[in-house]
Amino acid sequence: MVKITFPDGSVREYEQGVTGFQIAESISPALARNVVSCGVNGEIVELNRPINEDSSIALYKFEDEEGKHTFWHTSAHLLAEALKELYPGIQFGFGPAIENGFFYDVMPAEGQVISENDFAKIEAKMLELAKKDEAVVRKDVTKADALNEFKADGQEYKCEHIEQDLEDGTISTYTQGNFTDLCRGPHLVSTGLIKAVKITSVAGAFWRGDAKREQMTRIYGISFPKKKLLDEYLVMLEEAKKRDHRKIGKEMELFMFSERVGKGLPIWLPKGTQLRLRLQEMLRGLLRPYNYQEVITPGIGSKSLYVTSGHYAHYGKDAFQPIHTPEEDEEYMLKPMNCPHHCEVYARKPRSYKDLPLRIAEFGTVFRYEKSGELHGLTRVRTFTQDDAHIFVRTDQVKAEFENVIDIILKVFKTFHFDNYEAQISLRDPSDKEKYIGSDEVWEESENAIKEACKEKGLNAHCEIGEAAFYGPKLDFMVRDAIGRKWQLGTIQVDYNLPARFKLEYTAEDNTKKTPVMIHRAPFGSLERFTAVLIEHTAGHFPLWLTPDQVAILPISEKYNDYAKKVGQYFDSVGVRATIDDRNEKIGRKIRDNELKRVPYMVIVGENESAEGLVSMRKQGGGEQATMKMEEFAQRINAEVKEMLSAVNE
Amino acid sequence: MVKITFPDGSVREYEQGVTGFQIAESISPALARNVVSCGVNGEIVELNRPINEDSSIALYKFEDEEGKHTFWHTSAHLLAEALKELYPGIQFGFGPAIENGFFYDVMPAEGQVISENDFAKIEAKMLELAKKDEAVVRKDVTKADALNEFKADGQEYKCEHIEQDLEDGTISTYTQGNFTDLCRGPHLVSTGLIKAVKITSVAGAFWRGDAKREQMTRIYGISFPKKKLLDEYLVMLEEAKKRDHRKIGKEMELFMFSERVGKGLPIWLPKGTQLRLRLQEMLRGLLRPYNYQEVITPGIGSKSLYVTSGHYAHYGKDAFQPIHTPEEDEEYMLKPMNCPHHCEVYARKPRSYKDLPLRIAEFGTVFRYEKSGELHGLTRVRTFTQDDAHIFVRTDQVKAEFENVIDIILKVFKTFHFDNYEAQISLRDPSDKEKYIGSDEVWEESENAIKEACKEKGLNAHCEIGEAAFYGPKLDFMVRDAIGRKWQLGTIQVDYNLPARFKLEYTAEDNTKKTPVMIHRAPFGSLERFTAVLIEHTAGHFPLWLTPDQVAILPISEKYNDYAKKVGQYFDSVGVRATIDDRNEKIGRKIRDNELKRVPYMVIVGENESAEGLVSMRKQGGGEQATMKMEEFAQRINAEVKEMLSAVNE
Repeated sequence: MVKITFPDGSVREYEQGVTGFQIAESISPALARNVVSCGVNGEIVELNRPINEDSSIALYKFEDEEGKHTFWHTSAHLLAEALKELYPGIQFGFGPAIENGFFYDVMPAEGQVISENDFAKIEAKMLELAKKDEAVVRKDVTKADALNEFKADGQEYKCEHIEQDLEDGTISTYTQGNFTDLCRGPHLVSTGLIKAVKITSVAGAFWRGDAKREQMTRIYGISFPKKKLLDEYLVMLEEAKKRDHRKIGKEMELFMFSERVGKGLPIWLPKGTQLRLRLQEMLRGLLRPYNYQEVITPGIGSKSLYVTSGHYAHYGKDAFQPIHTPEEDEEYMLKPMNCPHHCEVYARKPRSYKDLPLRIAEFGTVFRYEKSGELHGLTRVRTFTQDDAHIFVRTDQVKAEFENVIDIILKVFKTFHFDNYEAQISLRDPSDKEKYIGSDEVWEESENAIKEACKEKGLNAHCEIGEAAFYGPKLDFMVRDAIGRKWQLGTIQVDYNLPARFKLEYTAEDNTKKTPVMIHRAPFGSLERFTAVLIEHTAGHFPLWLTPDQVAILPISEKYNDYAKKVGQYFDSVGVRATIDDRNEKIGRKIRDNELKRVPYMVIVGENESAEGLVSMRKQGGGEQATMKMEEFAQRINAEVKEMLSAVNE
Repeated sequence: MVKITFPDGSVREYEQGVTGFQIAESISPALARNVVSCGVNGEIVELNRPINEDSSIALYKFEDEEGKHTFWHTSAHLLAEALKELYPGIQFGFGPAIENGFFYDVMPAEGQVISENDFAKIEAKMLELAKKDEAVVRKDVTKADALNEFKADGQEYKCEHIEQDLEDGTISTYTQGNFTDLCRGPHLVSTGLIKAVKITSVAGAFWRGDAKREQMTRIYGISFPKKKLLDEYLVMLEEAKKRDHRKIGKEMELFMFSERVGKGLPIWLPKGTQLRLRLQEMLRGLLRPYNYQEVITPGIGSKSLYVTSGHYAHYGKDAFQPIHTPEEDEEYMLKPMNCPHHCEVYARKPRSYKDLPLRIAEFGTVFRYEKSGELHGLTRVRTFTQDDAHIFVRTDQVKAEFENVIDIILKVFKTFHFDNYEAQISLRDPSDKEKYIGSDEVWEESENAIKEACKEKGLNAHCEIGEAAFYGPKLDFMVRDAIGRKWQLGTIQVDYNLPARFKLEYTAEDNTKKTPVMIHRAPFGSLERFTAVLIEHTAGHFPLWLTPDQVAILPISEKYNDYAKKVGQYFDSVGVRATIDDRNEKIGRKIRDNELKRVPYMVIVGENESAEGLVSMRKQGGGEQATMKMEEFAQRINAEVKEMLSAVNE
């Protein structure tokens, strides 16, 4: 018999050789139907792998990240199996599971081309094969056997991979029907679980990502255990397209990119700048009760600063290169991180235990080189401004400080209605202690502090062992947006490394010199990325307190432009942000254009309104309409804003 | 007879060969006593130079920039004459007039050293020589004669200079007593006008500024036509030392520099950041009525952007060098100017004549390489943030827009009590038109627009012909600070060049495409430099609305820390910025330390105060003292701030 420990800590005994599937069956038939893979002592394996010793187990369904990964990995094999039937002579590169689905890089035989027109055919073939519910069978093979097998099949890329990258004794293959792939697994037990597939796109990709090698065809797809899930996904994709922050950013004139300025370098346009400044003010307001001290540090630093911090070694050749100066002994780097600068602020004068926690905040602009192909709107850029802070604490202050930061992050989520979030605590792997710096005692103290802080704040956080950085444990937040997509927002990271590298110290109560612990934290991450997420979450319909223009004033015709101006001046004087659309256009066109700009309220002014000091309000999206005194309308706007902001601070 | 035209346009006739001195005499004996040099047709010459044709003339006194230059140039010769007597065998390099006085680079003979201890001796010798009132006599010489003369005197550096830099037919010498110097002049007619001298410092300086050549001794001095002026200058110097923004910045913890971050890269500390953000808000407030649109652009731009703008050619090898990236076809530059980015914002969509003026503003952070020896506190740094804007206008809008910008600049001056200012209009030299781009018509229109705008705003502006940039005329402001020093603050620059280089255009009313004119303007110049000037102007005693901490709360002993906290929270709740000094120090020490931090008000709290909700106010500088309810005190602070700010907007 073997002892099986479940995630909730309960233990059951099973016969030696029991499989994950059998364990699932022993719990409930429904679970057995839905389970796709399992974790045994932290390793994800097939459901039919025998368990021969006492183990901890986790059963994964498609809904779990780990389950999705297994499901989509097998789906990649199914895609390859289908392609092999459809395109004889096709050669295969790599075919992994990715965040949303899977892809396979392939080289069609001479004269063959795979395009969008073929997607339906490929999907049909995949489903046809899946219906056969073929078993997926793992085999451990020698390097020689593997080479022979794939050479016989004419798979040159697989052979190159075996020869150049793999060692004898580590190689396995997976076979389903007539298709065998070189793979480490794990996989579904059989392909029948795959009930719905969609080939989503096709693109070019260099073999091994090397621009000097052959260009292959990369085919992307996604698959589901139920047709309904695919339908929902397709609806979500359609909705996501409408919410694409690049599209909305253009329509609302929030930001732009210019090829001449450079790729991945966002320019915040006037309305975007207003939005950003308001976000900054909102964050400053949230930080006020917590005694943060804001600083402004330069956008560059000497190379030696980053040699000291270790960032130079870390970013190295794949980063923006050092900036030379006419004076030969000097070299500068674009600032990739604010922390070294903040360490210098800490170090500028002697610090005592009474001075801690010392909280240094900055809207710090940093530069990171990204390949041009990896740039994406505001979410992947080459310069961005972090809502950064570094908190220098004694080890006994870690817990209280985590609670403070959790409070701030949850207030941010509440403010923007990210009501659906989860948290992950990344811990070190205690079986691999050499990987980490800092004593056992310090690690245990901090890890417990984080866990307790989460508990006290009622945070449903799960722990991931081995996910900590080498320099300290951390807490990450993931939010789901309005259409269910996950975004990482908010990180709190403990760091034992930088304070030591910068030889930071404080005088302890017993008059000895001690090294402080540093906590990095950024509720937004960056203003750029947060703005992108917020656009996609709200589809550009920002909360009234934040949105650049709260009201668009639309004169019926040029005759009423003067009255529109008068209304605008009144709104301005009482703090209502209004824009006047005095173009020589029909009122219908003006309404349409301002709908597109997501202005929450329009007020239409014509003969009747100008005669009596009225405005005719129209809510964005064609909602509520009403005519009222302009003063009454302004009061209503201001009251709405006030209510929103006070709700956050409750 | 020759016709002499005076600066006010009046014309008098004199005999051919008349000198500047004789002209001064003909006007008044007092003027003749005070005149030191003159300008003839724009060239500064000696007072005894005969005038042989119809000319315009300007008579310069010591009070004029041009007069000072002549005076100090002759004083440099006087210094050299004195050194030659005191240190036989001394060799001379260059000895120019500078902004405040003059220097001479010398190489003392083997074994001789000139140090601070020698200053009194040198000053005495200079005055002794000046008393002789020796004539300063100009002689035009051939290159061969000049070489012979200086070789005979053993002046190796002068000989090298003659041989390498000078052409036959362009060489002159000036002699006073036994001393002859190679010089283009002009000079005083005789040395007797120099009544007071002060040797101010001594430093090392490489011959020709070349680190590979010999290090010489640079002796700095200053001189005056009256002893009283020297005394005033020394008092001012002493006062300036006390107001040094580097010293006060440290005492008030406003900013810091770190060798490890890099030279010339300021870090704004928490209190400095508060100050800076408040300055920014104040400027935003001033701009609000003028319809500026704020943007945020990246701190780098592609090299090709600056090739297009011409900045790359301009800054070139003496600047921060391009940043290489792992993708080989890309090179970036640290942004030296915001204008190219703003041109791209202009160019992002078609513009019509109705869209102009388009005012794009940014607190734009730029980077300029300065030699490390030229860095100075916040006034000469390698990165700074301009309160920048670029206004795109039609030519017929230049005047109105200048009036707007003049209004803004004068409001800034008023806000900070820079009551003493002057303005200079820099015009092109109409006799050298090839130097400038843009048509005659456009230049005339703009130059007249600027002159008229100044007139309408009651600005006492003087015109300088030939001082315009090649791309357009400009208006500069100079302020005098509280101790009489001049600072350049505020520039408005017309630019015909960049819009053309970026091919910017708008659709005119007649449907043709036209190029807009660009106006650069920055009321502060940069936040760094303005802060430095403001510190030196106010000696760190910032206006109450601006200063980081308005009140320091000083508990008499630790027993009253809780009450201090209560007072602090109350102040915070009513918008009074207070800091609590709860250190375990005697109250006298706390008062002294907070005086040094220039906190405008201290409130002392002890037994009596805590029992009755009182505070004992003490004004910075040991002024007014009074005990009152804390609410009353807070009201007083807020009322004082309100009054200040409303005075500005009157």
